[in-house]
Amino acid sequence: MFKKIQSLLIGKALKTTELAGEKFNVIWGLPILSSDAISSVAYASEEILLVLVPVLGAYAYGSMIEISMAISALLFVLVFSYKQIIDSYPHGGGSYIVASDNIGKVPGLVAAASLMIDYVLTVAVSTCAGAAAITSAFPALSEHKALISILVIGLITLGNLRGIKDSAKLFGIPTYLFILSIIIMIGTGLFKVLVLKVTPVELYPIKQSTQDLTVLLFLKAFSSGCTALTGIEAVSDGIPNFKNPAQKNAKTVLMLLACIVFVIFCGLSYLSTMYKAVPGQDITVIAQISIQVFGQNSIMFFVLQATTAIILTLAANTAFSDLPLLLSILAKDGYVPRQLSVRGTRLSFSNGIVLLCLSSAFLVYIVNGSTHLLLSLYAVGVFISFTLSQFGMFKKWTKSKEGNWKHKAFINGLGATITAITCIIIGVEKFTHGAWIVLICIPLLVTGMIRIRRHYTKVRENLKIDTEVESLIVRESVTKYIIVPVQTINKSFIKSLNYALTVGDNIEIYHVSTDEEITKKLIEKFSTLGIAAHLIIENAPYRNINEKLVAYVEEKHRQLKKHEVITIVMPQFIIPKWWHQTLHNQTSIFLRRSILKMRNVVIVTVPYIINE
Amino acid sequence: MFKKIQSLLIGKALKTTELAGEKFNVIWGLPILSSDAISSVAYASEEILLVLVPVLGAYAYGSMIEISMAISALLFVLVFSYKQIIDSYPHGGGSYIVASDNIGKVPGLVAAASLMIDYVLTVAVSTCAGAAAITSAFPALSEHKALISILVIGLITLGNLRGIKDSAKLFGIPTYLFILSIIIMIGTGLFKVLVLKVTPVELYPIKQSTQDLTVLLFLKAFSSGCTALTGIEAVSDGIPNFKNPAQKNAKTVLMLLACIVFVIFCGLSYLSTMYKAVPGQDITVIAQISIQVFGQNSIMFFVLQATTAIILTLAANTAFSDLPLLLSILAKDGYVPRQLSVRGTRLSFSNGIVLLCLSSAFLVYIVNGSTHLLLSLYAVGVFISFTLSQFGMFKKWTKSKEGNWKHKAFINGLGATITAITCIIIGVEKFTHGAWIVLICIPLLVTGMIRIRRHYTKVRENLKIDTEVESLIVRESVTKYIIVPVQTINKSFIKSLNYALTVGDNIEIYHVSTDEEITKKLIEKFSTLGIAAHLIIENAPYRNINEKLVAYVEEKHRQLKKHEVITIVMPQFIIPKWWHQTLHNQTSIFLRRSILKMRNVVIVTVPYIINE
Repeated sequence: MFKKIQSLLIGKALKTTELAGEKFNVIWGLPILSSDAISSVAYASEEILLVLVPVLGAYAYGSMIEISMAISALLFVLVFSYKQIIDSYPHGGGSYIVASDNIGKVPGLVAAASLMIDYVLTVAVSTCAGAAAITSAFPALSEHKALISILVIGLITLGNLRGIKDSAKLFGIPTYLFILSIIIMIGTGLFKVLVLKVTPVELYPIKQSTQDLTVLLFLKAFSSGCTALTGIEAVSDGIPNFKNPAQKNAKTVLMLLACIVFVIFCGLSYLSTMYKAVPGQDITVIAQISIQVFGQNSIMFFVLQATTAIILTLAANTAFSDLPLLLSILAKDGYVPRQLSVRGTRLSFSNGIVLLCLSSAFLVYIVNGSTHLLLSLYAVGVFISFTLSQFGMFKKWTKSKEGNWKHKAFINGLGATITAITCIIIGVEKFTHGAWIVLICIPLLVTGMIRIRRHYTKVRENLKIDTEVESLIVRESVTKYIIVPVQTINKSFIKSLNYALTVGDNIEIYHVSTDEEITKKLIEKFSTLGIAAHLIIENAPYRNINEKLVAYVEEKHRQLKKHEVITIVMPQFIIPKWWHQTLHNQTSIFLRRSILKMRNVVIVTVPYIINE
Repeated sequence: MFKKIQSLLIGKALKTTELAGEKFNVIWGLPILSSDAISSVAYASEEILLVLVPVLGAYAYGSMIEISMAISALLFVLVFSYKQIIDSYPHGGGSYIVASDNIGKVPGLVAAASLMIDYVLTVAVSTCAGAAAITSAFPALSEHKALISILVIGLITLGNLRGIKDSAKLFGIPTYLFILSIIIMIGTGLFKVLVLKVTPVELYPIKQSTQDLTVLLFLKAFSSGCTALTGIEAVSDGIPNFKNPAQKNAKTVLMLLACIVFVIFCGLSYLSTMYKAVPGQDITVIAQISIQVFGQNSIMFFVLQATTAIILTLAANTAFSDLPLLLSILAKDGYVPRQLSVRGTRLSFSNGIVLLCLSSAFLVYIVNGSTHLLLSLYAVGVFISFTLSQFGMFKKWTKSKEGNWKHKAFINGLGATITAITCIIIGVEKFTHGAWIVLICIPLLVTGMIRIRRHYTKVRENLKIDTEVESLIVRESVTKYIIVPVQTINKSFIKSLNYALTVGDNIEIYHVSTDEEITKKLIEKFSTLGIAAHLIIENAPYRNINEKLVAYVEEKHRQLKKHEVITIVMPQFIIPKWWHQTLHNQTSIFLRRSILKMRNVVIVTVPYIINE
């Protein structure tokens, strides 16, 4: 039943050997890995204006260009830095790998923790922003923003559980549609103002202000706008998902991505300046611009809202393709639960996908679908991981001193410096707005990962055989006590007893008496069995049957000599209908747990199937 | 740790032989078993006025007396009927027992279901009404009514988990204080008006109306007022909790109870008529009367509110003393899960107590602390169980025809007729207000109970030995396959293997390969072990290791001959810290479940303790 639903929703199981087929080329890799970066622009301009307009009023639009240029410069520094990472790390050069390879384990884990937080935030932010685009077009739905986001997360999760290639096709076309629509809007918008000399009509009144752009305000706006750069690292993380030649394809995608982000981000910033879009309204800045360019009820307005909603939503998909991969790498290194490295029936890392689905949906539920609350948490983590990976690369070059190392070290050193400065700016500016949560979560996650690793190491040490394997085999037969607990003599008990008789001779039938009548009957019936087993009876005035049994076994366990084992034979009812289980005492679970704590006690479970 | 907290909260464990000491006499039995009935008056008058005042205005107070008299008459019919039940059922004559003894199993279960619903409602209604009394005195708390109720439910639960006698002392004194305060209020109120000739000042304006009391309105008000009679049956249910002579004590308590209810109910109804209390206000009718009698900030006002709150809250305690008892009787008959018949460490039926706590708290949460919503559900169930028990007694007398049977049959027959009519009135009047929920729940519960009983019967039939016990013992040694699954050869596997070697010779080491490298290493290592076991290797291209193993065992299982068994030896990691468990694969649980479905496959669990 469960199997059927599963295969209906996510498709039939795939063989491990089918793995190679599930990779993508440049055409499909671009939309899959870049939707996060490209879609960021849908809220980045608005976030910048949200800082500037309340202080500067109409004067804000002048400063917009300066800030956009600063962010664009940062974009290209990052792109060149990351091209070098792709060259050096053909199996995927996430910040975790680069930082832990070149700086050390702890910086690596810090980068990993930042990335984990960011991927969850990416999903939450993007789906909420997508929902905002939908509710801009249909304001009646604005109450249900959180619900829409969570539904969308569920859909993306299903798509990803189906596997990589399917989702690439599913998600690629809308990304291209979005890019096209935005570029048409930018073209039309510029054409109308520059060539047709149309004067835009302001949608909302903007107050005048005489204040000037201060350094502080610039930094504030800059740190808000940096969200536009989130998602750039996705390409270098995702190299193993590319078809061969994977590195070349990845670099091509990275360059294409940077160009698209540059054109769209600057284009939108410029349009918002021309058309004087006002942030923080019921409808988003992009929606305002498209209304002014195409008209309120034009087809293009709805196309733009729809593709914006879709690409924002799909941006979440980048995280769904990368976080599970990161987690599987961490799992192989023993820093997160090992289950996260197992591929599901469709060859995707299904546990990681489900984990991301649950945590991001929870986040959306908590902030009730508000993008703005999440955006303050967002960029810190991204820039921490940027800085660590750039600094890692810088150390790599200065250590190896091979070939053209000075040039390469300069590029990554510049990247590290600039991202570090940006990181500090964002950390300070956004600290009280929520960045402190991230700065608390990162050390917590790092500590957790170190402790998980320590546990796995201990387990491995415990299980490792360091002597000759053969010497561990115990060949002589082992003396045993065989204990069969009994409350009443019935078929199930007889079945257990029969099994016990095959295991050995020293059988003890153990009974705890809470009712004299029942015990008397038991003794009587037992005498008719005609078997050579001891019947042991204990009284339990406090009705604690299980505790008595455990204490008895513990006492016997203490007397064991080397290589001796106690075997406890216990029946277990097998009941066809699951809800009937609740009608039977569940204390046997606790009993098992207490007994198995003893090193040399073995439990034999004899099933007794109840026919209905 | 858990044990320590438990004994701190509910006291140390008690021996089964200490059971007899935990019973009560008339002095403590009265408050314990009557608080429900006595406290009902705190909302019954208000419920009547709530029907009358909106239609009749000031004219309502004239009709109040007629309705109170009708309800009082019903009270005494019930008391005499129940005295006969106490005489005939010394071990507790709940409606369930009386109805199933004399009419049949299904009517008995209908009565039981109605009672179950009512006990849960009693707890919810009483604690909500108690919270209303508190918020009448401290209006600032009125937002937190539901929270207060749920906290109180938690406290009562703790008290009851401690055991019967303790709670009798804890709860008896406030009940007597309430009775005393109410009687003082009634006395003072009457004295002021009748002797001192004080004219009461109306607290709220009442509109005049020329409408007359119609039959329909009378029935409506009557059905609302019948909530005053809930709780009467508690005494006959609780006979086993009384000290000897239990029946005599119970009858004394029943008479005392009826007199107290009569005095308080009529007294309050008369006072509300005199002082023109208005229902449905922020402060309750009782609070209004006490303000008029004693003054807004008088000590007596607060004493009355406090004792009202306490007794209403304690009324819930009646349910906590009776529902678990009813459930334990039903459990012994096999109609509800058997766990409900087990006494906890303090000799109370702790599972039933916890169940009642959870379900009533859930109900309070759903209605958000509103008494009025619950009261519409309330009385139907009570009167269904009244009717069934009275009718049962009537059948008992007419069947036995012993002694003074005609007189007895008349009393119970009258009781049955009147309660049946009342039941129909309430069912019709309250149907759309929520009684329909109860009328749906009762058949659902009855069906559920019948199905549970059917399951237990099937289990008993399955386990019952009908031949000579001795013939079932299998004396000849049983041929076995012994299967030891392995993924890597480590200490834990060697331990399992050593145990397998003691069980028999035909050992198969079963490995599922998902990675060629690992499998190659395994084969190599295995050859150095030097044991006479077969290594069986299967490939799993779909990575479904567990499914492969289950299929393999199923195949072997099909080939078994009579008395042959397959033994599967599996290691289990024992990890000291519980959260570390989550770091290991939990699929072994599903594996166990699938394997144990096979009749002749036994699982041996060999613990491997991980040291940290």
